[in-house]
Amino acid sequence: MAEPLRIALAGLGTVGAGVIRLIETNAALIARRAGRPIVITTISARDRSKKRGVDLSPYAWEDDMIVLAERPDVDVVVELVGGSDGPALACARTTIESGKAFVTANKAMIAHHGLELAAKAEAAKVALKFEAAVAGGIPVIKGLREGAAANAFERVYGILNGTCNFILSTMEDTGRDFADVLSEAQARGYAEADPTFDIEGTDAAHKLSILAAIAFGAQVDFASVDTSGIARLRAADIAQADSLGYVIRLIGVAEPDWADGQCRLFQRVQPHLVPFDHPLAHVDGATNAVVAEGNFSGRLLFQGAGAGDGPTASAVVADLIDIARGEIGAPFSVPVTELEALPPAPSGHRRGRAYIRFIVADRPGVLAEITAAMRDAGVSIESLIQKGRAGQDGEVLVAMVTHEGPESAVTEALRLLDGSPSLAQPPLVMQLLGN
Amino acid sequence: MAEPLRIALAGLGTVGAGVIRLIETNAALIARRAGRPIVITTISARDRSKKRGVDLSPYAWEDDMIVLAERPDVDVVVELVGGSDGPALACARTTIESGKAFVTANKAMIAHHGLELAAKAEAAKVALKFEAAVAGGIPVIKGLREGAAANAFERVYGILNGTCNFILSTMEDTGRDFADVLSEAQARGYAEADPTFDIEGTDAAHKLSILAAIAFGAQVDFASVDTSGIARLRAADIAQADSLGYVIRLIGVAEPDWADGQCRLFQRVQPHLVPFDHPLAHVDGATNAVVAEGNFSGRLLFQGAGAGDGPTASAVVADLIDIARGEIGAPFSVPVTELEALPPAPSGHRRGRAYIRFIVADRPGVLAEITAAMRDAGVSIESLIQKGRAGQDGEVLVAMVTHEGPESAVTEALRLLDGSPSLAQPPLVMQLLGN
Ligand SMILES: NC(=O)c1ccc[n+]([C@@H]2O[C@H](COP(=O)([O-])OP(=O)(O)OC[C@H]3O[C@@H](n4cnc5c(N)ncnc54)[C@H](OP(=O)(O)O)[C@@H]3O)[C@@H](O)[C@H]2O)c1
Ligand SMILES: NC(=O)c1ccc[n+]([C@@H]2O[C@H](COP(=O)([O-])OP(=O)(O)OC[C@H]3O[C@@H](n4cnc5c(N)ncnc54)[C@H](OP(=O)(O)O)[C@@H]3O)[C@@H](O)[C@H]2O)c1
Repeated sequence: MAEPLRIALAGLGTVGAGVIRLIETNAALIARRAGRPIVITTISARDRSKKRGVDLSPYAWEDDMIVLAERPDVDVVVELVGGSDGPALACARTTIESGKAFVTANKAMIAHHGLELAAKAEAAKVALKFEAAVAGGIPVIKGLREGAAANAFERVYGILNGTCNFILSTMEDTGRDFADVLSEAQARGYAEADPTFDIEGTDAAHKLSILAAIAFGAQVDFASVDTSGIARLRAADIAQADSLGYVIRLIGVAEPDWADGQCRLFQRVQPHLVPFDHPLAHVDGATNAVVAEGNFSGRLLFQGAGAGDGPTASAVVADLIDIARGEIGAPFSVPVTELEALPPAPSGHRRGRAYIRFIVADRPGVLAEITAAMRDAGVSIESLIQKGRAGQDGEVLVAMVTHEGPESAVTEALRLLDGSPSLAQPPLVMQLLGN
Repeated sequence: MAEPLRIALAGLGTVGAGVIRLIETNAALIARRAGRPIVITTISARDRSKKRGVDLSPYAWEDDMIVLAERPDVDVVVELVGGSDGPALACARTTIESGKAFVTANKAMIAHHGLELAAKAEAAKVALKFEAAVAGGIPVIKGLREGAAANAFERVYGILNGTCNFILSTMEDTGRDFADVLSEAQARGYAEADPTFDIEGTDAAHKLSILAAIAFGAQVDFASVDTSGIARLRAADIAQADSLGYVIRLIGVAEPDWADGQCRLFQRVQPHLVPFDHPLAHVDGATNAVVAEGNFSGRLLFQGAGAGDGPTASAVVADLIDIARGEIGAPFSVPVTELEALPPAPSGHRRGRAYIRFIVADRPGVLAEITAAMRDAGVSIESLIQKGRAGQDGEVLVAMVTHEGPESAVTEALRLLDGSPSLAQPPLVMQLLGN
């Protein structure tokens, strides 16, 4: 058997400890499949004395991730520290500059600096891999980059954040409100102490921007993802959606948008109404799922655990096996120099159906005011429901679903209502996911 | 850009024509992703004059697939003829022996001769690839072989035949009987004129044996797949299952079975009762889906179109892109010499719940006879329903679901009833798919 592939591990938290456990547990099988053993030689984290549930004595310790990245007895550095910049980024640069392969689960860093790192890796002819950065244990980057590589993709979308999906499906099952379920999710370890990145959609947007780059041959453009989160959702929205035949899921959608011979890139993360008969409607708990629509493959669905030590380690080690087998390839499927700088697509001309929910003051004329604004903006209402006194001091909930029409009409209607004293808070708009 | 990869295509039917269309339509994108153009140079089929909906004039024609395989101006031969032996197999052998890569969608051939061909390909250091042979456009071979390669698999199962799934989900939606729906499927092109391989489960068994080999590092053992099809299912079975909270799907299941320090391989294709809340219960029409349970990844689901010209071509060309990128690798994930010859696992000790349906004569004492046999064999009945005169001359349907117990007990109960004049036909047994 060939020489072992020597791994240095920076970061020994949830995922790092998972990688150690996996490489130890499945060592024989990995060696057989990879054609050579994969061995951890060196590790690094902040606190050397911390108990991590795995025996660290077989491994050399480095206090400094940069020194780790420079060690001559290392072939691949695996970064499981996190953070878009700082030590993780420094470690990535040093690793690649010293001619080693680099593997990471760090979506924030790839969303912000993936292009720079890929260009460096291509120049150095080393592998840069980040399967674990998107959708945890699901091999969706490989799915797009290789499995469905023969296709022009028409759309890529999915459930990319397990925390949000856990919260939404728990709200659905229990009828409880957002804040309440979030606290439980934190207590049970499904949500971070600071859940901002998850519930505001940032984490999903990181992942979406990476998927979009690979699917559409575009430069990663995280800054242009139109992102909204789930914090404003109420139990009443979920009940309304249910009565209409939908569940609510935080969906990231990316697609190319052609107009006047110019291709633009549409990227949005937003809670959507998903019809009961759509495969994503059955994705519950912390599960993730990605749909890729190829011009020959049709709709492909990849589903599995979106996070957790085991699944994320599974994706990290899949990258290591690829590297052991000699797979280098362009990190974003085509060389960085060939990735297009696609301008962001506007959304106004997009046609679809929307759910619009208002919290209004309980007084006469409010419904007339809202429906007049809709009429004046050309929004055609398919169904409307008004629920009296949802509990909160005289507030009333008005929810409607529109007929298909351009998003610009909805925006215009809301502009007409902007500042109206009838509205107790800004309206909430969610798109209906088409089939 | 590097030299083009030169393809010869043997077989210009549904899939072959799809491959030509795909390679022409997506040529630029494929070249970018593969790092070099993929060009068809030579083609072959039986009838040169047949219209095939694609312009064949750019390609050289060979009457003989063997001559095609020997041409020096060809790098890869793609075989889309079909049949486990005969010209397809001869073509495969010649291709590999002349040092070229070989790509096929031919599950029958890989199930029967995959080991021989893989050994030849490994010796010749050429690629042998067959992504399209299992689950059409879904990159599930890549998913197991690479995407989830870090895992020991605990079980692999799924819906592997689109024709059966179309028939079952149509029976479900319409309440119509098997024969009736089969005729419609044939008329609409979802079933072959001779549907035997599909409806008897043989096609699914071919695919299952290939997946099992890759997942469990075992020699392909198609002959040991315990296979039954869907032809005996009645509308009444589907209605019964529905009332109990299940749909019926033809499921292939493979898993390692350890006993007395010896690993055996369990492989079965059988209609199963799938609970409504299982992801496979929502797989309708000609869709396929495969679930792989890894010891770190947890449950991964791959879903998409299981057949058709576009999806199958997508998988064929994904293989070509891998080859263009230089990926060779062991066809069954580990070298053929390391694949284990796992003996087939018996099923008697397997514990589960079963649906058992009898068609009985309408006369007193029949129920007592059946339930006594169950009692004597130690089968505990959870629910039982008797439906009078299902239409066919005095026949009565008795359906039951058992509590969890060993399969051997059910077998014993049926042995006790064997030959009883009360039974109008052999009982039908289906397992309930666990969650
Ligand atoms: N958790 C998941 O399910 C999951 C899923 C997909 C992707 N990811 C990504 O995987 C990465 C790691 O996530 P995690 O959940 O494992 O994080 P974590 O549990 O917080 O672990 C982070 C690790 O990094 C170490 N670290 C922090 N700063 C360091 C520094 N300056 N130098 C060296 N080590 C440092 C920490 O050391 P100490 O332990 O000594 O404090 C800790 O071991 C992140 O990019 C995350 O986005 C996580
Ligand atoms: N159809 C699907 O959706 C699908 C999906 C997955 C896998 N597959 C597999 O793909 C393969 C092809 O399927 P298909 O549906 O495309 O079959 P098909 O439509 O029947 O086409 C078979 C082709 O092979 C040619 N052929 C037959 N005998 C030949 C011979 N002796 N020499 C040269 N050419 C010969 C035929 O030539 P003529 O046209 O001149 O008669 C025809 O072009 C099979 O292995 C099948 O199992 C099919």
